[in-house]
Amino acid sequence: MERTLIRDTTAKINKEVLLKGWIKTRRDHGNLIFLDLYDRSGLIQMVVNPKVSGDSYKIAQEIKTEFVVEVIGKVNKRPKNAVNKNLLTGEVEIEVLKIIILSKAETLPFDMGGEDLNLELPTLLDHRPLTLRHLKIKSIFEVQEFIADSFRKKAKDLGCTEIFVPTISASATEGGADVFGIDYYSHRAYLTQSPQLYKQMMVPVFERVFTIAKAYRAEPSVTTRHLSEVTQMDCEFGFIDFNMLLDLLEDVGRETIKGAVEKTSHVLKLLNIEKPKIKTKIPRLALREAQEIIYKKLGRDNRNEPDLSPQDEIDLGIWAEKEHGSDLVTITHFPTKKRAFYTMPDPTKSEYSLSYDLLFKGSEIASGSQRINDYSAVVKAIKDRGLNPKDFEMYLMAFKYGMPQEGGFSFGLERMTMKLLSLTNIREASLYPRDMERVDERFSSVSKKD
Amino acid sequence: MERTLIRDTTAKINKEVLLKGWIKTRRDHGNLIFLDLYDRSGLIQMVVNPKVSGDSYKIAQEIKTEFVVEVIGKVNKRPKNAVNKNLLTGEVEIEVLKIIILSKAETLPFDMGGEDLNLELPTLLDHRPLTLRHLKIKSIFEVQEFIADSFRKKAKDLGCTEIFVPTISASATEGGADVFGIDYYSHRAYLTQSPQLYKQMMVPVFERVFTIAKAYRAEPSVTTRHLSEVTQMDCEFGFIDFNMLLDLLEDVGRETIKGAVEKTSHVLKLLNIEKPKIKTKIPRLALREAQEIIYKKLGRDNRNEPDLSPQDEIDLGIWAEKEHGSDLVTITHFPTKKRAFYTMPDPTKSEYSLSYDLLFKGSEIASGSQRINDYSAVVKAIKDRGLNPKDFEMYLMAFKYGMPQEGGFSFGLERMTMKLLSLTNIREASLYPRDMERVDERFSSVSKKD
Repeated sequence: MERTLIRDTTAKINKEVLLKGWIKTRRDHGNLIFLDLYDRSGLIQMVVNPKVSGDSYKIAQEIKTEFVVEVIGKVNKRPKNAVNKNLLTGEVEIEVLKIIILSKAETLPFDMGGEDLNLELPTLLDHRPLTLRHLKIKSIFEVQEFIADSFRKKAKDLGCTEIFVPTISASATEGGADVFGIDYYSHRAYLTQSPQLYKQMMVPVFERVFTIAKAYRAEPSVTTRHLSEVTQMDCEFGFIDFNMLLDLLEDVGRETIKGAVEKTSHVLKLLNIEKPKIKTKIPRLALREAQEIIYKKLGRDNRNEPDLSPQDEIDLGIWAEKEHGSDLVTITHFPTKKRAFYTMPDPTKSEYSLSYDLLFKGSEIASGSQRINDYSAVVKAIKDRGLNPKDFEMYLMAFKYGMPQEGGFSFGLERMTMKLLSLTNIREASLYPRDMERVDERFSSVSKKD
Repeated sequence: MERTLIRDTTAKINKEVLLKGWIKTRRDHGNLIFLDLYDRSGLIQMVVNPKVSGDSYKIAQEIKTEFVVEVIGKVNKRPKNAVNKNLLTGEVEIEVLKIIILSKAETLPFDMGGEDLNLELPTLLDHRPLTLRHLKIKSIFEVQEFIADSFRKKAKDLGCTEIFVPTISASATEGGADVFGIDYYSHRAYLTQSPQLYKQMMVPVFERVFTIAKAYRAEPSVTTRHLSEVTQMDCEFGFIDFNMLLDLLEDVGRETIKGAVEKTSHVLKLLNIEKPKIKTKIPRLALREAQEIIYKKLGRDNRNEPDLSPQDEIDLGIWAEKEHGSDLVTITHFPTKKRAFYTMPDPTKSEYSLSYDLLFKGSEIASGSQRINDYSAVVKAIKDRGLNPKDFEMYLMAFKYGMPQEGGFSFGLERMTMKLLSLTNIREASLYPRDMERVDERFSSVSKKD
């Protein structure tokens, strides 16, 4: 008999089917045992009745959560009052005729059968291969898949070519100390802090490019918003000006979120997440305007700060939602000194730059800028930061041989997932998060220090 | 005036358009200057006539290859005898009314204007940001994009969920010495040799998964087929048996190649590449059968070798093409010892394993196996290889709590690109290839040794 996927059972009422999957819950009603079976297509309730199959009943008594089984059963329509409207297969159930255990599971270290998995974050991560199996945890990554998918679709619609760029580089390319060193044969190499320099080099090749790439930051701090290894979704465009870039940033942000929301409305419902407010017109503020609003509304005077604080971002999120009904707000013109060397200073006021962040529900999810595209200006910018143009020879070659006005942006996949699902810690939005305390297991020396 | 993309000029005959792009060639006919302009949508011929615009003619005399320009011009239909059938815009040309130089290019270190870019590989790579601009070089990566795209499409059609897995791991997970070490805060970490262990851990979460991920191999050798950083396209499936896996392997391989070929037929024509022979039925041979064929046909006795040599792969490619009209051939049952610890031994003959390689035009492009899915059997396999189960705690957790029969495979994106386009060196199929001699620039110490 050929295997039937769980979601297809509803089209096979009164027929015998072969199902395979994991047992998610087992409820023993004495005379009947109810088993919830899960496969990649969904969840279904099965009933084991000793009067129907004594053997199955005996086996079902032994079965525990996460056992892998193969079942032959009859698809029965449930009586109307027993229909489960929250379940795709809620109108049917399986009358078990035969059950075979394919793989046993040890007793779980905690209860996985509840609607929520109420675990502290360290426990959640210590048992990642197990906790990811919980419906609400795995749902996070279904949403993540569609964020990436919608981004890719939008980037392609905009004429971007997908590129695959390296993550090993010869020097700490963007400057700063937060870089991981690698023993590269008998040399020293580094993990790229972003795909930035490579996507820029690709502008004269394809004019518009995108990449989903890993980025590594050795920031020696533990926050709820940062990881040591993240997934970036990057675009870069030639022949643009600053206003076109802002339009592109917002267009990609808007469509990525909207696309993910459309594709995963069942998941958002399950996770009890309200649809985000995504408007056609997204409010735009220069950094100093944003700080002025915070000062006027809340009396907090950050008007001379070179960047937004996390609390500023939260308050601007509230402001944008209240004043513009928008969960997105764009902040522009950060001080030139605060941004990377390749950022174009504002020609009318060079202490500020043609840069931008996109905030979503009170947190930065994307960052970018128009870039310096004149060869000698890039060389000068590198020198001004105390960096050595010798370390950027290949990068500079792209500018030496004809580079138009260009710019782009980078979305953080984990950050977007976190904000869209209102998670409190970015680690929940990474399958296997890396930070200074953990690579899969926690580092023992760190545990000792705690 | 709004910018027109070059490919859209054919719909604007006799109209004035604004074009932006890079100058690819400049031909001075004395009384006329011909310029080929390139943007992300295509290439077009422009004519600068001093009688039409004296200013433009003056500027055009200064223009060189790779200059970035903005042009206002009239779209003229070419006379029939001047139509260029090899060009999408070959029925029209632009009569230049005004030209502005947006960005100059230094004199190129070699001629980029020819139909082919005849450079030695080191030169090609030393000037990567420039050489990638050549039409035939950049075309390689248009094909690469569609290989990845077709793989993704096929994996999704098969019900796989896309996952994003880490590239930093706590131990040299697959064993062996060919691993790059990282200074990870005050700890030692490693770059993953493949996404293998993570995709396996995701089987009990999504049952079927895929990922496009980086893999790192510190092999201290320089061959035409290996890179230190590669892009892998991986699938993993639960509830399978060995024959299903072979079907899935071949299905993904077939559809990925076919999809890429369909989407890039213009590129294959440009690169003078014959369409590969992709049959519905792909020949399958056990390793020992394959070696027997080589012995019988060519007298080369490798019948006791644990693996195919590169020459064996080439000869099997020729055999498959000749005998079965197929550019693909599947080789199965490699010796258990030669494969990674997680490979399932053949239950009927445990010195051979339920493993497979897919060869394409005489070279391995994919590799995989059914995996050991029983918890204690995995622990034993780890110990048998002299590895420490303590280093695999998280991985083993996936098996401790219910793992069905599972398996999968991994395609090398650069390797597939190389074979599909008959490139002689895998470095040509990587935008910025990494090997022991080069990370962008060649390492000076290596140059000295040469």
